Amino acid sequence: MTPLQKKRLSYIPKKPTILADLNAITFAEKGATEAIGDKGEIQKRFPQTYGRPLIKMTHGKGGASKPLKVGVVLSGGQAAGGHNVITGLFDALKKIHPESHLFGFLGGPSGIVDGKYRDLSEDELANYRNQGGFDLIGSGRTKIESEEQFAKSLEVAKALELNGLVVIGGDDSNTNAALLAEYFIDKGCKTRVIGVPKTIDGDLQNEHVAISFGFDTACKTYSEMIGNIARDALSAKKYTHFIKLMGRSASHIALECALQTQPNYVLIGEEVEAKNQTLQAIAQDLIDVIERRGKEGKNYGVILIPEGLIEFIPEMKTLIQELNMLLAQEGGSIEGLSAPSKKTFDYLPKEIQDQLLLDRDPHGNVQVSHIQTEMLLSHVVKAELKKRNFQGKFNAIHHFFGYEGRSCFPSNFDATYCYSLGIVSALLIREGFTGYMSCVTNLREPVEAWGVIGIPITSLMNMEVRKGKEKPVIQKALVDLKGQAFKRFARDRDKWKLQDHYQFPGPIQFEGDPSYTDQIPKILS
Amino acid sequence: MTPLQKKRLSYIPKKPTILADLNAITFAEKGATEAIGDKGEIQKRFPQTYGRPLIKMTHGKGGASKPLKVGVVLSGGQAAGGHNVITGLFDALKKIHPESHLFGFLGGPSGIVDGKYRDLSEDELANYRNQGGFDLIGSGRTKIESEEQFAKSLEVAKALELNGLVVIGGDDSNTNAALLAEYFIDKGCKTRVIGVPKTIDGDLQNEHVAISFGFDTACKTYSEMIGNIARDALSAKKYTHFIKLMGRSASHIALECALQTQPNYVLIGEEVEAKNQTLQAIAQDLIDVIERRGKEGKNYGVILIPEGLIEFIPEMKTLIQELNMLLAQEGGSIEGLSAPSKKTFDYLPKEIQDQLLLDRDPHGNVQVSHIQTEMLLSHVVKAELKKRNFQGKFNAIHHFFGYEGRSCFPSNFDATYCYSLGIVSALLIREGFTGYMSCVTNLREPVEAWGVIGIPITSLMNMEVRKGKEKPVIQKALVDLKGQAFKRFARDRDKWKLQDHYQFPGPIQFEGDPSYTDQIPKILS
Repeated sequence: MTPLQKKRLSYIPKKPTILADLNAITFAEKGATEAIGDKGEIQKRFPQTYGRPLIKMTHGKGGASKPLKVGVVLSGGQAAGGHNVITGLFDALKKIHPESHLFGFLGGPSGIVDGKYRDLSEDELANYRNQGGFDLIGSGRTKIESEEQFAKSLEVAKALELNGLVVIGGDDSNTNAALLAEYFIDKGCKTRVIGVPKTIDGDLQNEHVAISFGFDTACKTYSEMIGNIARDALSAKKYTHFIKLMGRSASHIALECALQTQPNYVLIGEEVEAKNQTLQAIAQDLIDVIERRGKEGKNYGVILIPEGLIEFIPEMKTLIQELNMLLAQEGGSIEGLSAPSKKTFDYLPKEIQDQLLLDRDPHGNVQVSHIQTEMLLSHVVKAELKKRNFQGKFNAIHHFFGYEGRSCFPSNFDATYCYSLGIVSALLIREGFTGYMSCVTNLREPVEAWGVIGIPITSLMNMEVRKGKEKPVIQKALVDLKGQAFKRFARDRDKWKLQDHYQFPGPIQFEGDPSYTDQIPKILS
Repeated sequence: MTPLQKKRLSYIPKKPTILADLNAITFAEKGATEAIGDKGEIQKRFPQTYGRPLIKMTHGKGGASKPLKVGVVLSGGQAAGGHNVITGLFDALKKIHPESHLFGFLGGPSGIVDGKYRDLSEDELANYRNQGGFDLIGSGRTKIESEEQFAKSLEVAKALELNGLVVIGGDDSNTNAALLAEYFIDKGCKTRVIGVPKTIDGDLQNEHVAISFGFDTACKTYSEMIGNIARDALSAKKYTHFIKLMGRSASHIALECALQTQPNYVLIGEEVEAKNQTLQAIAQDLIDVIERRGKEGKNYGVILIPEGLIEFIPEMKTLIQELNMLLAQEGGSIEGLSAPSKKTFDYLPKEIQDQLLLDRDPHGNVQVSHIQTEMLLSHVVKAELKKRNFQGKFNAIHHFFGYEGRSCFPSNFDATYCYSLGIVSALLIREGFTGYMSCVTNLREPVEAWGVIGIPITSLMNMEVRKGKEKPVIQKALVDLKGQAFKRFARDRDKWKLQDHYQFPGPIQFEGDPSYTDQIPKILS
């Protein structure tokens, strides 16, 4: 173990005051809920759990101090703080009753289906407190979907006599938690299912969940790097850095990192889509900025690009759909493209055209996630600058930050937030709730003032088409173009284009002044 | 400014005890020196400064407390701590005499030639203490080579009445400092020239200079990322990460990061060259490891690759030389390749063949630095695994860490080391030395016990052919395959291949226990 690893083991996350005495708290009902859309259909699919009330933690007499048996599973991509949800859950269960057990399902939801688990002990957990990664029990992307998978999960839950199952995951995994909750009630199984909102992408947000865990640490880690690169650009004065950031469905990470580092140019997918921008229009605006900077002798810059940009550009979406249709056929060629799509295709640099034509999945579909958007943009910029007879210099350097930010040591914020989420999950199970999501509120306030609620997962759902089928899903939270965070960005960004207002956040600090050890995400503050 | 930026401004680097009272110290001579090679030729080129003694700081009566006028220049790529050399230099000059002046030459050595400078003030420097980057005065890669450039530099030095000029740079820049020192003496100019050893690559090392500044911070920043990725690999268990690290001429960074993070496989260019390994041989060994891991169900891994690997592979060097010859000619083609080079070429994946054929500089030369070695290796591995009918899974993810580590906030070690180097430079000038390199010794000891010496730069030189011409140069320090650091790596690496011994250093910490705030590079300890 490294010295910092050892040190972090002994960090004790603060707790909200309301969680001080687990025996003197309970939940109060705050009125029935309904789905955010397709209410009838959601109710039909969740007859047992639909419409349950929002609940709020309050002082009172909590459930009996009986031993509880609880399972926990990590689902999907890593996010800093996962281990702390587990330690918070474990500590709360042991406090509720020392004979409680926490079973960790191994390798993600498939661990539930296949009954692969480990009875977690204090000794084992002692090495994972405030540590990054999901390696204590691993994670996976299996979805519990088939009747057989549900039946096997039920068997395992019964065999282990689980009072509860905590699913730590993103929107899909929480939907899965709600489906399991419903199924278990239906089959007369006592196992309560609780979801915990995890995802670095930040697209699991709603009226109550200000942010999913892992977002803070990931953005701070990316911002450390972006700040370093910006300071390098400002010193060397000869490179334009195109930095792609993880986050396919939404651009929250790009927005947060923009607010933290104030780069020269930032693309927000949701804005591109709202304005129905073409790739050419996006490029032209960016090129204008580079050209104007060049005229001032600033042959350098920092540009942030969300990973999912391409899927927000309406014409690119259409082009990809057409290519998927055409190229899936034997002997299919791009001859069949519609006129607008042909124009879009012709505008792309050769390298990207090749990627679109050659890099296809087994179904013949274009592999959108493989398209190097940062390269695409820099190639387009370069070609256009040449056309414009640009007199400055343009040297592009490409970066992609993603995996670097998922398994870091959790920031103090994420460590604390996750530990509380774990405690709340234990309490929801003790109080007999199922199909609920653990939620900690008032995150802008000091930890002591944080509140605790439980949200019926069905209240976050609507129906959407996924892989050709109508499914109940938790609506993904996109960047709100009318929200405070985007407005602040939109107000300031013009200033960042020509002048340099780079900010250098530096590496995450764990000790020292709270102004840099305990900062919360900018999009919250 | 970010909160951490503000906090770092007030950090006060410790000083070696010997530097406590600048008025009570001087340098003692420790015997004449000679060049490490081509002694006669080096002496011929440096008739005035050759053979001067190594000098060591000692208690005694130092030079008079007269005001000094000194210029400072940053040369070459960014390295964390550059600003601290300047503040250390400034503070020492002001302590020597409050009416001393420090002139910062702007944008690198061209600032000297063109007389572009700024008279640095305490107020200005106050915002750069312990900060990353070189943006206070910028940097550049101009070499002072032509007679005209020398003459113009002399004019500027005379006009400013400089007592000294401090050149902060790598091996080439320090060579340049020695040339300037010689030239100034020759022309009867009083300006003393002092070099300061900077480079994140770590290839400016010798018997006295344990490490150049910037190396520590860069390696810690890369190791933070590598550790994060390793923890992610261990959690997701489905990706093999190919991580390329900056450092073309030597593999010190890869070695240091290997010792810090203990990945599954690390390539060291110097070893590849010493063993005369072919690309195929390198790939085979790596593939064996991946195959054996796959058999144990470990479909993941972390591999470090030094940026300069390709230039260490003898057959690749030959291939590139032949391609440069063939393709520079009008209508040249690869038909003319020798049989061994043809074989090497055919072994390369299509993408890399294309890069070699198409991506050429204005002289028709292959752009070696553009070759994506991490991609090359993963493509070769993938193809070979297919041939071997590999039953496991292989998903490669590529990373390149370079610019992220050059302009970070300097670690406490680099901040302290650089501040001392700045003070030493002022003292060398006060004492009238020229053509010397500032050097702080005993870096393994507590700061208080650090020693101070001055090294005649000519003693680090030999003659080498650069761009077809014999030139006096400081020999680049390569990884010593018989040294302690490499031996430790060689002893442990087999263990890392199949078992996972990943270490997670985490982000650089500035406050807390010295075990993680003040660690020195592993290759030193």
